[in-house]
Amino acid sequence: MPSAKADDGYRLWLRYELVNNSTLLSNYRNAVTSVYLPGTSPSLLAAKDELQMGLEGLLGKKVSFQNTLANAQLVVGTPASSSQIAALPLSNQLSKAGDEGFVIVSTTRSQKKIIAIAANTDIGVLYGVFHFLRLMQTQQNIQHLAVTSAPKTKYRLIDHWDNLNRTVERGYAGFSIWNWHTLPRYIDQRYIDYARANASIGINGVVVTNVNANALILTKEYLEKVAALANVFRPYGIKIYLTGRFSAPIEIGKLKTADPLNAEVRQWWKNKIDEIYTNIPDFGGFLIKANSEGQPGPQDYKRTHADGANMFAEALAPHKGIVMWRAFVYSNESPEDRLKQAYAEFKPLDGKFNNNVAIQVKNGPLDFQPREPFSPLFGAMPKTPLFIEYQLTQEYLGFSTHLVFMAPLFKEVLNADTYEKGKGSTVAKVLDGSLDGQALTGMAGVANIGNDINWTGHPFGQANWYTLGRLAWDHQLSSAQIANEWVRQTFGNSKPLVDTVEKMMLSSREAMVNYMTPLGLHHIMGYGHHYGPAPWFDKASRADWNPVYFHKADSIGIGFDRTANGTNYLSQYAPEVRKQFEDINTCPEEYLLWFHHVSWKHTMKSGRNLWEELCYRYYAGVDSVRVMQKEWNSLEKLVDKQRFNQVKMLLAVQEKEAVWWRNSCLLYFQTFSKMPIPPSYEKPDQTLEYYKNLNFPFAPGNGR
Amino acid sequence: MPSAKADDGYRLWLRYELVNNSTLLSNYRNAVTSVYLPGTSPSLLAAKDELQMGLEGLLGKKVSFQNTLANAQLVVGTPASSSQIAALPLSNQLSKAGDEGFVIVSTTRSQKKIIAIAANTDIGVLYGVFHFLRLMQTQQNIQHLAVTSAPKTKYRLIDHWDNLNRTVERGYAGFSIWNWHTLPRYIDQRYIDYARANASIGINGVVVTNVNANALILTKEYLEKVAALANVFRPYGIKIYLTGRFSAPIEIGKLKTADPLNAEVRQWWKNKIDEIYTNIPDFGGFLIKANSEGQPGPQDYKRTHADGANMFAEALAPHKGIVMWRAFVYSNESPEDRLKQAYAEFKPLDGKFNNNVAIQVKNGPLDFQPREPFSPLFGAMPKTPLFIEYQLTQEYLGFSTHLVFMAPLFKEVLNADTYEKGKGSTVAKVLDGSLDGQALTGMAGVANIGNDINWTGHPFGQANWYTLGRLAWDHQLSSAQIANEWVRQTFGNSKPLVDTVEKMMLSSREAMVNYMTPLGLHHIMGYGHHYGPAPWFDKASRADWNPVYFHKADSIGIGFDRTANGTNYLSQYAPEVRKQFEDINTCPEEYLLWFHHVSWKHTMKSGRNLWEELCYRYYAGVDSVRVMQKEWNSLEKLVDKQRFNQVKMLLAVQEKEAVWWRNSCLLYFQTFSKMPIPPSYEKPDQTLEYYKNLNFPFAPGNGR
Repeated sequence: MPSAKADDGYRLWLRYELVNNSTLLSNYRNAVTSVYLPGTSPSLLAAKDELQMGLEGLLGKKVSFQNTLANAQLVVGTPASSSQIAALPLSNQLSKAGDEGFVIVSTTRSQKKIIAIAANTDIGVLYGVFHFLRLMQTQQNIQHLAVTSAPKTKYRLIDHWDNLNRTVERGYAGFSIWNWHTLPRYIDQRYIDYARANASIGINGVVVTNVNANALILTKEYLEKVAALANVFRPYGIKIYLTGRFSAPIEIGKLKTADPLNAEVRQWWKNKIDEIYTNIPDFGGFLIKANSEGQPGPQDYKRTHADGANMFAEALAPHKGIVMWRAFVYSNESPEDRLKQAYAEFKPLDGKFNNNVAIQVKNGPLDFQPREPFSPLFGAMPKTPLFIEYQLTQEYLGFSTHLVFMAPLFKEVLNADTYEKGKGSTVAKVLDGSLDGQALTGMAGVANIGNDINWTGHPFGQANWYTLGRLAWDHQLSSAQIANEWVRQTFGNSKPLVDTVEKMMLSSREAMVNYMTPLGLHHIMGYGHHYGPAPWFDKASRADWNPVYFHKADSIGIGFDRTANGTNYLSQYAPEVRKQFEDINTCPEEYLLWFHHVSWKHTMKSGRNLWEELCYRYYAGVDSVRVMQKEWNSLEKLVDKQRFNQVKMLLAVQEKEAVWWRNSCLLYFQTFSKMPIPPSYEKPDQTLEYYKNLNFPFAPGNGR
Repeated sequence: MPSAKADDGYRLWLRYELVNNSTLLSNYRNAVTSVYLPGTSPSLLAAKDELQMGLEGLLGKKVSFQNTLANAQLVVGTPASSSQIAALPLSNQLSKAGDEGFVIVSTTRSQKKIIAIAANTDIGVLYGVFHFLRLMQTQQNIQHLAVTSAPKTKYRLIDHWDNLNRTVERGYAGFSIWNWHTLPRYIDQRYIDYARANASIGINGVVVTNVNANALILTKEYLEKVAALANVFRPYGIKIYLTGRFSAPIEIGKLKTADPLNAEVRQWWKNKIDEIYTNIPDFGGFLIKANSEGQPGPQDYKRTHADGANMFAEALAPHKGIVMWRAFVYSNESPEDRLKQAYAEFKPLDGKFNNNVAIQVKNGPLDFQPREPFSPLFGAMPKTPLFIEYQLTQEYLGFSTHLVFMAPLFKEVLNADTYEKGKGSTVAKVLDGSLDGQALTGMAGVANIGNDINWTGHPFGQANWYTLGRLAWDHQLSSAQIANEWVRQTFGNSKPLVDTVEKMMLSSREAMVNYMTPLGLHHIMGYGHHYGPAPWFDKASRADWNPVYFHKADSIGIGFDRTANGTNYLSQYAPEVRKQFEDINTCPEEYLLWFHHVSWKHTMKSGRNLWEELCYRYYAGVDSVRVMQKEWNSLEKLVDKQRFNQVKMLLAVQEKEAVWWRNSCLLYFQTFSKMPIPPSYEKPDQTLEYYKNLNFPFAPGNGR
């Protein structure tokens, strides 16, 4: 079919292209000649629609939906929706599948060979259908299926930082997909396809508004709009959440205070929350950023985060709603090491939160840097459910022009050992509730989604959205496994294509760390917009918004001493963790400058001194990008023209910006180290002054 | 092919779907079995690509490109690019085709039956190719072709009001398609498809930035980005233009003044313009808004518009660039009838502008209202080239949720008689240069284009973009003809579909006039954002931004007396025009309240009094929308599901908003007329207070 645009990326990983392996195609066609899917609930109808579209695309023919059992049939449903499913001996598996999981088995019923997709709930059925379609999209054998799958975390969330005027704070893929002006009456097809995409990876909750919240979202007019979105999402098992502006009782409620212990305030929120549930019976709850970066909060009234969170929790509890209270706090006034502040504020509150409150903790102690150690709050609040917050949008990771696959970053944190209950107390076990017996478990990703046709700007940004969903479902999936299945669905199944792209993806995060912030450097990006490097910047109104605060380069060395000799941030970790990081000889070099101020002449494991190692890493980072360029270019014949060219252009931008990071950081740090860049390396082609004078008044994502 | 999105509208009118009439398909296949298109210029390659894509889609098979003449061949080129074209006896027709036109003939050459697409220039060839594809898309007979076509205006322009942060002033289809951040290195496929769409309708110039201009676009960094766009557009015959911030010499040039008679300032602009041409050798020139709504301009230095425009003109002339100087001016301080101010400022300057300056005049004297009389500047400046500026984006016409086809509005102005040189001195003749012998001729439309997938938000918004191009090429095309060819290309050729949609389109503008501003009402919309009705509004900082200034309703009647008894605005027209408008008995009723303060009891042609007529019109407007809804619903089986549902939802919004306009305007005006809404009409279901209290803090298009 001719088109002006080849593959524009809109379909994400749900492309359902004809299976291009003829043996497999024939196997698939033989295995699924019809579908038996009774039931008319919205989720079952969504499952039916998806199967219709998916099978027609993958098999290249219409597959009939029948009302009687037949050979080579896909039999789909719950014991309640389908007597055929009810009659299958699946109770063991189904009990493991739980409320949202599913069972897929190749079996026989009344002498017919069938594949059953079974679940306890309609949404479980839909998840099973997406899983089955994924098997075919990734060209797996479907002859002897015996799958039982259940999600490891209960709340699997995408958080949008979308403003009501459609700007997106830290958004780099266009503007908000929520067109509030035309809601509730105009339902953009995107809303539906967004829900499909999320359901296909198990996302079951969406926070639609920015954590830097606007109270107007809670007015009657906007709640009607939110309800219209909730109606679109409901069949796909997705609940809607809002961000709660703590001062809303003043701003839209005409009260004089927002004190969480004030009876009028509490009543106002109770009424407001009841009103929300009248519009949206399955409303999920609130995500709240309070007393952080200028946002209002309970501390404005000398109350604690627990006082604030519990006020919401009480009003939400009768409706089964939850509060996600963000631990990303640091005070405007405090001279304390910024990294220590979240722990200092929240650790004492462990056990003080109502049981429908979760504390949402960023993966690291700072703010979504290319590499951070895990947040010390993980492992420090055994009596409190903790959700993890990752950032899919690449605020610090090259916006939407850098290819970086985040699964290795996410996994690094999940696999980190908190030693809360001895060895093996991983962050993953904190999150899935198994370590402390928590029932409220969750994983959230800050959306990298905008109204660009392909949703994420960079075609590979889609992989990070995909990863979040897959890991929230099953944090034991490996990065390679996720990359592999994403590539197959998104680009195709040919071996050189899959192998090469998987390799690119798996190396991409370490490449970025190297060309941006090697060896534990952090927060040395441009001010405000966070675009590009600015390690020299020292003009921010707050000390801890300045790169110089974080790298502390001087004539002796570089790095932030957070040992007992310094800010003693390391005391917030379990002794085993602390010990490893505190000793400069056991501290992994990738975290070195997070924790130590290290002499330029310090000998690294490579035998190079610190300065030479820094040079080595920055140059290696750029080299890795150049390798990715070559790898990508080798795929020209295997990728559709539009996306091939897109990624090629983007890699060229990435290479250019990697050089910019390398040159400007090294030239700047050289003013302290006074040592030469080894002559074997290509010479920076611009001066430090040149880089310092670059200005980006309209860099995207400032939320204006 | 399965897809998550059916027809998403991205392809605009260039869909190239398989011809669904089997007789015609067979005729077309027989007539075009191969293409002979030698040449490798960028425009010829674009023509080749388009033919490849178009023919493959329309004919459902690959058509081969050959290097020798053959029977049933499409022979394409210029006498210079193709010896076969050179050998055809087409010199008469080609001389009529001029620089941009083309000739398409069915003919015979060396005993082969061929269709020749010939032109004097490569861009003429591309235009001819688009015309030929249009013939097939609209299912015309191509057996005896004898087309000679040349554009009637020389500059055919789309003006974007796009800001550097990607907000679009008065944009309702998402945000700017120009991603300045990722330019110049990342070339979005949209830029190419945008150029294709424009070339297909003869648009040959694009102003990419807002008339409320930012000087930064003229900095080196941004000029590189602009040059990258110019490179994309060049093969499609499209020149790029910028808006010129008059105070740029101060803001980015570090001068103390922007006085157009200051030698340093003149030199600064000359250097800047030379620099632009170094980057963009075919740069088109500047569009300038000066001394209007707070923009800087020559009057800041007590100079005239001519002084300002000529400064730019002088610097542009060596490069063949032009200045489009906007006549949309009205002073912040002047108590004069706002409608009179443009004429008052510009008429005395007739003959004072350099010959590469055109004055760009909005179609009417106010600001793109649903209906305005033609601007009195048309017919008043015989020594000055005048371009017309239409507004495609629906600032005052229901944003992107109302279906309104603008061809009737555009044609109404084109057909208006200025009487400049006696009867028949139409605006069209002013514009095409024939009335006053102008060589510099042009027509511009303010873009309704954004980064919504379908470009214009409302699928029918595409028709207005299409119309602008077609009318700029040939202002004699009728509204019906344009509607007909657009529907066929955009939705399909089935007769009930074409007939019904054409009917809807042709009635839509009058419907809107009726439910918004019947009988010559104007400027009674919401303040600032211009969304919805607010005839009661009187709080603007300037009198002439207030609806009450324009409708002047009181206990006696309603309307603005612009006769000799009032502001005498009518004196700016030729006596013949003035006479017709000035006499309340000959003034066409659709312009009545533009020119007269009319008693509520005045008897209208219908026999109803003015109040009753007002009621009648407002109710008729809503009724027309309801008729459109029924008509559209009848097409469910003939339109793809996605666009059918889109338009259905949008018509429901339009109906709701039409009722809002009707009710709130009538309830408000009733407070003056003190007469009842006839009881046979449905009663307003809300009170005036309800409507007055509506607030839209995030209405789109405010450019923030």
